[in-house]
Amino acid sequence: MGTEVDVAVIGGGIVGLGIAWEAIRRGHTVTVVDPAPGTGATHAAAGMIAPASELHYREEHLLRLTLDSASRYPEFLDSLAWAGMDSGYRKTGTIVLAFDGADRRALADLQEVQTLNSLSVEQVSLRQVRRSEPMIGPAVTAAFLAAEDHQVDPRRLAAALLKAVTSMGQLVSARASGIERTGDRVTGVVLESGEVLTAGVTIVANGLAAADLTGLPCRLPLRPVYGDILRLRVPAALRPLLTHTVRGLVRGSAVYVVPRDDGTVVVGATMREDGSSAVSAGGVYQLLRDAQQLIPAVAELELEEVLCRARPGTPDNAPLLGAVPDVEGLSIATGFFRHGVLLTPAAASACVDLLEGKPAPLGLERYRPNRFEEGQSCAK
Amino acid sequence: MGTEVDVAVIGGGIVGLGIAWEAIRRGHTVTVVDPAPGTGATHAAAGMIAPASELHYREEHLLRLTLDSASRYPEFLDSLAWAGMDSGYRKTGTIVLAFDGADRRALADLQEVQTLNSLSVEQVSLRQVRRSEPMIGPAVTAAFLAAEDHQVDPRRLAAALLKAVTSMGQLVSARASGIERTGDRVTGVVLESGEVLTAGVTIVANGLAAADLTGLPCRLPLRPVYGDILRLRVPAALRPLLTHTVRGLVRGSAVYVVPRDDGTVVVGATMREDGSSAVSAGGVYQLLRDAQQLIPAVAELELEEVLCRARPGTPDNAPLLGAVPDVEGLSIATGFFRHGVLLTPAAASACVDLLEGKPAPLGLERYRPNRFEEGQSCAK
Repeated sequence: MGTEVDVAVIGGGIVGLGIAWEAIRRGHTVTVVDPAPGTGATHAAAGMIAPASELHYREEHLLRLTLDSASRYPEFLDSLAWAGMDSGYRKTGTIVLAFDGADRRALADLQEVQTLNSLSVEQVSLRQVRRSEPMIGPAVTAAFLAAEDHQVDPRRLAAALLKAVTSMGQLVSARASGIERTGDRVTGVVLESGEVLTAGVTIVANGLAAADLTGLPCRLPLRPVYGDILRLRVPAALRPLLTHTVRGLVRGSAVYVVPRDDGTVVVGATMREDGSSAVSAGGVYQLLRDAQQLIPAVAELELEEVLCRARPGTPDNAPLLGAVPDVEGLSIATGFFRHGVLLTPAAASACVDLLEGKPAPLGLERYRPNRFEEGQSCAK
Repeated sequence: MGTEVDVAVIGGGIVGLGIAWEAIRRGHTVTVVDPAPGTGATHAAAGMIAPASELHYREEHLLRLTLDSASRYPEFLDSLAWAGMDSGYRKTGTIVLAFDGADRRALADLQEVQTLNSLSVEQVSLRQVRRSEPMIGPAVTAAFLAAEDHQVDPRRLAAALLKAVTSMGQLVSARASGIERTGDRVTGVVLESGEVLTAGVTIVANGLAAADLTGLPCRLPLRPVYGDILRLRVPAALRPLLTHTVRGLVRGSAVYVVPRDDGTVVVGATMREDGSSAVSAGGVYQLLRDAQQLIPAVAELELEEVLCRARPGTPDNAPLLGAVPDVEGLSIATGFFRHGVLLTPAAASACVDLLEGKPAPLGLERYRPNRFEEGQSCAK
């Protein structure tokens, strides 16, 4: 160990691998440190590239970043084409359904905000939507089309990224315990074994585990937001169940059904801050109940996988992204909450711009990792 | 191969292992043939030893067998004590709950039949039942106590039986393709490899797969009745969730919640004849929904395992148990449907009595394996 590389990335989830790949394709030497790449939140994620339907009140500022990232996806995926692995990118659009009157009102209100923000979300007649999606249930009361909201398969994308990164860079299958820092200068990664991996720039991208790294110049206020998520197989007689991604509000609860090319659908996802990393029986019940309200044939599917993972949340639910002021050789890329997959290309581009000394993208300042320690000195 | 043993048992589920153990402890040399013992219906079974609450209309004739078998359980388990493995036997009784008015009426009607058949099932006040089981939900309308309905943990019992059988007998880890028969005489088991295992008596106890064996003197009319079943873990704060086994009718659907000593509960089971061996999303939804109606805290449990297995059903839902007339050296023990665990000690005793030339137990004739081919000659 000790071999110097240009860039060490702590974390081999989709964000860490995306950053590593971006650095590699710009000519840097890169090492990723992760004992089990792609097995955390990435393994659970549904993979919606959905800036419009993911818009939440008071998070409008994120739109600049999410739209930028979504627009980067086609080129980002093209750069992986040589690896010969399909990432499940589908541009079929997202249909958003309302169940009862209150759900309809809430989605109509949201559409106003979406339209004010120049997002393409239009109400469509149920007759029209049933023509393309005949499996939509009879109790649905309204439908909206977010034509620009697409999807990728995070497991396949992570596998492609891992292949690319290990072909042209290095993977260290170990847990990072901290970063090596002397004053205002970070010089590498401390592994659990005590060994140090020396690097010109270290990028912290290991999700929730980032908060536990030693040597950080500021506290990373991450919290686990657990999500239960299901994979179901569509029997041959019901294929295709859906062509669009279908999301909806069912008596105020959000649920989505994401169809994959392999004949499965992903149904998700609960949001739990109850401290339990086990699959919740009540969570699974709620997902199956609400998904059936939108698509009754969900009852006829085969339940292949039931999973829980934690999303890394922050106090304002926006990422911790960028350099830490007055600290050299360090970038942070965590706290992506529900948006890890969506924001991967933008995060990758921003992190590599920073390490190359390019100016930070406009608006990135808002996500500075130390923003919750205002007025405090970071470099201790 | 070719080594002669007294008894060859095809099938290492709980019934096959139970028969093998009974034969071994009566001094016979035994070989069990199964590529994966204990992984079929046994792996899914909840393990209720419940003749009273399992009584179904028009199946009253089974009571003689189920009551006999339940009464054999304590001694049967005692005979395994030397193996030092607990089988999870619990004698805490079963509470049967009614959800709506129709469920209450149906259970009251059933109780009349149970009482006519001298079974101990008494209606108890909800106040009384909540005193011992405070987790019972507010919407329940009636409760009955079947104090004599107990439980065993089929996975643990199968493991104990397997240990006993492999210690004092032999396990051949192979699939049986048929039985070796010459006219009216069965002489052993044909393995998938073509090898023949010679035995004085061959016992067919491999569940649904029995129907596919070559060389059978009569057709075994088995059909798969699929069941979805769940294992959930009770968080420490909610323990014990239940002390009794709780069963119930919820708007006409049967559901049960069986507490285990290890802090888990088993929730089951659907009955599907749809030909799908995959876990049904609608089935899991229904189990979680109905279990929550009886025990709302089920929503707070951790969903550890979701499983589907097929029960071996027969045209009259009674087992195929006993010798085949005019055929020597053969017994059949399959088609136990929902009663495989319950009937294991009785089936084991009956099969070993038969091979020892003892008279068949009273009433066994009713379950003769060739009863669906009346008037036809069995030995071809």
